[in-house]
Amino acid sequence: MDGTTAAPLGVGMVGYAFMGAAHSQAWRTAPRFFDLPLHPEMRVLGGRDAVAVKSAADRLGWQDTASSWQELVARDDVDLVDVCTPGRTHAEIAIAALEAGKHVLCEKPLANTIEEAEAMVAAAEAAAARGVRSMVGYTYRRVPAVQLARQLVADGRIGAVRHVRVQYLQDWLADPEAPLSWRLDKQQAGSGALGDIGSHAVDLAQFITGERLTGVSGLMETFVHERPVAAEFAGLHGTGDPGAARGPVTVDDAAVFLARLSGGGLGVFEATRFATGRKNAIRLEVNGDRGSLSFDFEDMNVLHFHDATEDAAVAGFRRIVVTEPEHAYVGRWWPAGHGLGYEHAFTHQVVDLVGAIAAGQDPTPSFADGLAVQRVLDAVERSAADDSRWVALG
Amino acid sequence: MDGTTAAPLGVGMVGYAFMGAAHSQAWRTAPRFFDLPLHPEMRVLGGRDAVAVKSAADRLGWQDTASSWQELVARDDVDLVDVCTPGRTHAEIAIAALEAGKHVLCEKPLANTIEEAEAMVAAAEAAAARGVRSMVGYTYRRVPAVQLARQLVADGRIGAVRHVRVQYLQDWLADPEAPLSWRLDKQQAGSGALGDIGSHAVDLAQFITGERLTGVSGLMETFVHERPVAAEFAGLHGTGDPGAARGPVTVDDAAVFLARLSGGGLGVFEATRFATGRKNAIRLEVNGDRGSLSFDFEDMNVLHFHDATEDAAVAGFRRIVVTEPEHAYVGRWWPAGHGLGYEHAFTHQVVDLVGAIAAGQDPTPSFADGLAVQRVLDAVERSAADDSRWVALG
Amino acid sequence: MDGTTAAPLGVGMVGYAFMGAAHSQAWRTAPRFFDLPLHPEMRVLGGRDAVAVKSAADRLGWQDTASSWQELVARDDVDLVDVCTPGRTHAEIAIAALEAGKHVLCEKPLANTIEEAEAMVAAAEAAAARGVRSMVGYTYRRVPAVQLARQLVADGRIGAVRHVRVQYLQDWLADPEAPLSWRLDKQQAGSGALGDIGSHAVDLAQFITGERLTGVSGLMETFVHERPVAAEFAGLHGTGDPGAARGPVTVDDAAVFLARLSGGGLGVFEATRFATGRKNAIRLEVNGDRGSLSFDFEDMNVLHFHDATEDAAVAGFRRIVVTEPEHAYVGRWWPAGHGLGYEHAFTHQVVDLVGAIAAGQDPTPSFADGLAVQRVLDAVERSAADDSRWVALG
Amino acid sequence: MDGTTAAPLGVGMVGYAFMGAAHSQAWRTAPRFFDLPLHPEMRVLGGRDAVAVKSAADRLGWQDTASSWQELVARDDVDLVDVCTPGRTHAEIAIAALEAGKHVLCEKPLANTIEEAEAMVAAAEAAAARGVRSMVGYTYRRVPAVQLARQLVADGRIGAVRHVRVQYLQDWLADPEAPLSWRLDKQQAGSGALGDIGSHAVDLAQFITGERLTGVSGLMETFVHERPVAAEFAGLHGTGDPGAARGPVTVDDAAVFLARLSGGGLGVFEATRFATGRKNAIRLEVNGDRGSLSFDFEDMNVLHFHDATEDAAVAGFRRIVVTEPEHAYVGRWWPAGHGLGYEHAFTHQVVDLVGAIAAGQDPTPSFADGLAVQRVLDAVERSAADDSRWVALG
Repeated sequence: MDGTTAAPLGVGMVGYAFMGAAHSQAWRTAPRFFDLPLHPEMRVLGGRDAVAVKSAADRLGWQDTASSWQELVARDDVDLVDVCTPGRTHAEIAIAALEAGKHVLCEKPLANTIEEAEAMVAAAEAAAARGVRSMVGYTYRRVPAVQLARQLVADGRIGAVRHVRVQYLQDWLADPEAPLSWRLDKQQAGSGALGDIGSHAVDLAQFITGERLTGVSGLMETFVHERPVAAEFAGLHGTGDPGAARGPVTVDDAAVFLARLSGGGLGVFEATRFATGRKNAIRLEVNGDRGSLSFDFEDMNVLHFHDATEDAAVAGFRRIVVTEPEHAYVGRWWPAGHGLGYEHAFTHQVVDLVGAIAAGQDPTPSFADGLAVQRVLDAVERSAADDSRWVALG
Repeated sequence: MDGTTAAPLGVGMVGYAFMGAAHSQAWRTAPRFFDLPLHPEMRVLGGRDAVAVKSAADRLGWQDTASSWQELVARDDVDLVDVCTPGRTHAEIAIAALEAGKHVLCEKPLANTIEEAEAMVAAAEAAAARGVRSMVGYTYRRVPAVQLARQLVADGRIGAVRHVRVQYLQDWLADPEAPLSWRLDKQQAGSGALGDIGSHAVDLAQFITGERLTGVSGLMETFVHERPVAAEFAGLHGTGDPGAARGPVTVDDAAVFLARLSGGGLGVFEATRFATGRKNAIRLEVNGDRGSLSFDFEDMNVLHFHDATEDAAVAGFRRIVVTEPEHAYVGRWWPAGHGLGYEHAFTHQVVDLVGAIAAGQDPTPSFADGLAVQRVLDAVERSAADDSRWVALG
Repeated sequence: MDGTTAAPLGVGMVGYAFMGAAHSQAWRTAPRFFDLPLHPEMRVLGGRDAVAVKSAADRLGWQDTASSWQELVARDDVDLVDVCTPGRTHAEIAIAALEAGKHVLCEKPLANTIEEAEAMVAAAEAAAARGVRSMVGYTYRRVPAVQLARQLVADGRIGAVRHVRVQYLQDWLADPEAPLSWRLDKQQAGSGALGDIGSHAVDLAQFITGERLTGVSGLMETFVHERPVAAEFAGLHGTGDPGAARGPVTVDDAAVFLARLSGGGLGVFEATRFATGRKNAIRLEVNGDRGSLSFDFEDMNVLHFHDATEDAAVAGFRRIVVTEPEHAYVGRWWPAGHGLGYEHAFTHQVVDLVGAIAAGQDPTPSFADGLAVQRVLDAVERSAADDSRWVALG
Repeated sequence: MDGTTAAPLGVGMVGYAFMGAAHSQAWRTAPRFFDLPLHPEMRVLGGRDAVAVKSAADRLGWQDTASSWQELVARDDVDLVDVCTPGRTHAEIAIAALEAGKHVLCEKPLANTIEEAEAMVAAAEAAAARGVRSMVGYTYRRVPAVQLARQLVADGRIGAVRHVRVQYLQDWLADPEAPLSWRLDKQQAGSGALGDIGSHAVDLAQFITGERLTGVSGLMETFVHERPVAAEFAGLHGTGDPGAARGPVTVDDAAVFLARLSGGGLGVFEATRFATGRKNAIRLEVNGDRGSLSFDFEDMNVLHFHDATEDAAVAGFRRIVVTEPEHAYVGRWWPAGHGLGYEHAFTHQVVDLVGAIAAGQDPTPSFADGLAVQRVLDAVERSAADDSRWVALG
């Protein structure tokens, strides 16, 4: 209850792990800092393990629980379904929800296969015609510094884009004895670093430049082919210690690829879980013929901007601390210089989604945007499987 | 309702401006991410303007309102009073609350005068004897990187402290046409940059080193002696435009001071609202004979640490991204590399306060710690008024 | 005359532009700071324009001049020929010099074609059998921070190399009206960004890792196909102003490529003259399974090193200021903290070359190392011309 | 011989330690990169130990030697005397040289006492009337980034100066077992960190702002009062090992002081040899009401500039890489992005000094500028000795 007179928007969420916690914080927090045209109510959390779901619902602040996504989707008091499950279940849940007339927020990647993603886009477009909205959760778009980057490009401040380089670097698999998990199993995860984090790299590049990747040449690698089976994963088989059972890694540890952009620029992308010392470093640089931008999520409240039209004697990359009232979202939080953190972008996502629903507009990134990312990832995989041969994108 | 079986802790808050919003977010959020031994319930928000209080309570998530702090303090369902009002009202409210048996969280600075602060300490000590707890809100202590700094000093990793330099830099008054506000009026604010932000600098220096300042030499300055009267401040008198009425600035724009530390080191402090381009830069460096630490709140998830005992060929300041599970508080938030923001420190403050209350311990920083800061600020003012002559602290 | 009792080493240099100035400073300076086992004497500067050569010799400190490289090579008082001419003349001069029994220092790239480079390697190997030494000028190897990087890898401090990313970024062609020069003409320059600066990127990657690139997938681009003809280039044709004659750019403006390393790691390379705001940024990062390194020539006295075997709570990239006596070369210059500049690496090159000659050893990088770089560049070109298809290296 | 037709300028240098090596490199190098109106000839190196002087002269490139400064000053072929000896000998040598009609370049600090410095200024002014020039070696002024800082202030780009903070941080005494040397003996060195490096801090502050310090409040400290006597210092007494003889430290290890600037701003200064991990970090920040500057000698080719008049959404500290042809001195060295090192500033000093002599102008910093710095240091010492009481400067 935040005293708003806005009409309620009943929310149901499926899944309650890392993403579920982040989304819950966003649903709880958005109406406290932003004036929302609809008032989100956290009505139902869905999941199969009734005890765990109840415990999560209490902890995360959901009023009720449902023992299946089907039950959740069927509830009359749910206007929007927030899909926080692993990728292989996205299509089924999202399509059913859209067909049931529920707005959908779906975590990324949109789906594990192109076919599923295409079906989701079709469902989203059909739903949109009936006023039912959908959005895919490429949340990093809503970091204020990323918004500023997009705006500077859109305003022509860096001119024609010549180069984009994006690295999404993590290191949690650098240790060869790090255990197996479902994320390293192709059946469950679809792909490894490429789909999990490379997808963000692609989405950010396309979002900030406002261009599409038109072709790629890829290279993928699994450095460690077998890992100890973690206890929770192994069941009876082992405990993750060196003497324990080992299982195969069936996804990529790292993926690198070259690309062309629709405006004629070149892209270089890297996604890895083996960049020792980089925990969640999304590093992005765009060079245009009138200026450049640089961003690193390790310093997420900062954007570096070089204006090449300035007098050379005083030109240089400006370290813009993106905490001014002029910057997107920021004015609703704290005074200048008081930085935001990781989860704020999820709150911004809720703000934009609720705003679009109330305005009767399609929010972005759309399922079609999500599919566009999937097509790039698929092209990278096909190129990597075919001697890095160029794969053009439509 | 977060499903906890913990006993409730009824909270009442007085004041609902910037600090009130930050504290509310903390009370709301702490039980969602941390296992608290008592369950805070946001019961009453107090303030004189009934309409404004009701609106704020709805927005910030308080169940009920009170039209005066006296009414709030008198309520049986309030176990803890959170004082977020301006400094001149702290003593009266906090003492009354403590005497009424309520735990107190009081925003900094503890009070506007030494006398008031001393009375508060006396009240706190009397209350503590009855199991009633009090804490002053030097929140920056609870930034994980600051906690790590403290721990490294305590563990002897930098050896004997030789130098502390702390700069708290803001720039919102650099423009001579920035309007007057209550913060520039000595009657209301007590002091200017010195008390508002210099107090944090002093507390951080004492917290991280575990030492006290034993004497100071100060210099204070008001660069702009008259400013346009802001509309909301001027009432009928003006609108803040250049032609409008102007009023006197009666506090310091900047304060700088030298200090000695109880361990024999030297301190250099600076607090200003005229450091153009620095919005909320708290920059801190400590040099010990075995190592050094460096921190800048503009990059709040990072601590730099130099270990002087290492081989010189590979020694260097390490940029520690303080987002590992090993770091204070961090494990309850997100995976490594997903940074926190400004308001998280307020959530940590709630966690520590509630933990201490449940454990029957006195939380820190205590009112006595707050008084220690006030004594330093007072000594700086006296030194500045007396030709920068050294003023020893007891 | 620097008072040494070392035997003299007569040096003749061909070419006196940018590289000639840098090499001259090195020959002049090396014996002033280092104890050289042979004493270099700057005997002859060679070039076809007698007036210009005489003027350059006076300015740069050469005792005498020669009107052709043939004349210079033939002189008895020349023991070493320093080849600072454009790449297309390297093979002819270097081979003649080696056959005449002169040691050779040859600027990079070794040659404009693989065939020439192979002939040079053959000549170098034949000469080495007779005690005549040769070296190619990949000078960046001799930046102390790069030496430290190499040493840390060789000492196993970062473990097995998983990723290398190298970007050599300049921006002098970002402006579409920047004039044509011989460097943009394939006949003269061989290639564009790839050969000029990409060659350094490849050499540094191979030097620091101690591995070879075993295959590549490349993409090259010319963003601006026609440029105003610069006055000095145009002769009678134009003056470089927008209305002036325009001529074609026949080399690459940018080249990007993926690679595999002999140890199983992945490489990502980028060479461009269109990275607005980056003047001469050689940025290099290596991730191993036990640690990582990071270097940027814009901050050339610093190496960042992450040791992943440290306690996670205090691990972080160390900013090593590479100016300690323990660091390569540095002890002969200034006290710790007094940084070196661009040209110091040329002085170090002289030191190492003279040392190897006196010791009767083959210096590195050898012509074979230079050829290895050429082979990589050639493979990148072939891949880029063939749809980015993978090209394996022997 | 650099082929110049410029008239010769005979140079004699006294002293050949660290500063002598730096000055020699400058005299050797300046005419190679800059068009000097007079041609410096390195004629005589003076010193009392004939063997050592001869060896140094050979190594550093001086044609001849003199066994006393008196002999050197008396030589007809010496037009300029370069004084690189310790401070206590400066007055005697410089005054004699000026009286003998020789131009003088004198290392900093100008002298060990105010009285000597005043006598030197008197001699310099008398000499100037006869066309004999003098300059004191505050070399850091001639780092291109510092020149740019000065220019931006002079051009009004940062407006009225509100704050200057300068830290000169070294760490070579942080280890309590670091040995005694003449620099720690008040009789020989005059003062410790204050005079040796604090003097640079003061000169830089006054140079960049174009203002004078008008008063100070100081605090000085000797952290380690007794140190092992180094072998070379101890003679028969010991070897510097822990069991060896120990001697007293009679100078300051660190000095900190507050100041007022003539334009009304506040200054905070710090000079220490105990800042672990900082080898030669001269860090300088100036905040004006229209902008700010920031510099760190650890990254000497970079100046950070914040323009507060820009649109807040894109304002930020610009990292200006000061290697453009537009920047002072830089165009004579290398292309943009190829940084300079420590000793380049000495070469620039020669360039400016020779230029002033040829132009018949008084170079800066003058001896009077050097005296102004001494007066500040003296005031700091007096304040520190008198309870940090404010000491006004004339």
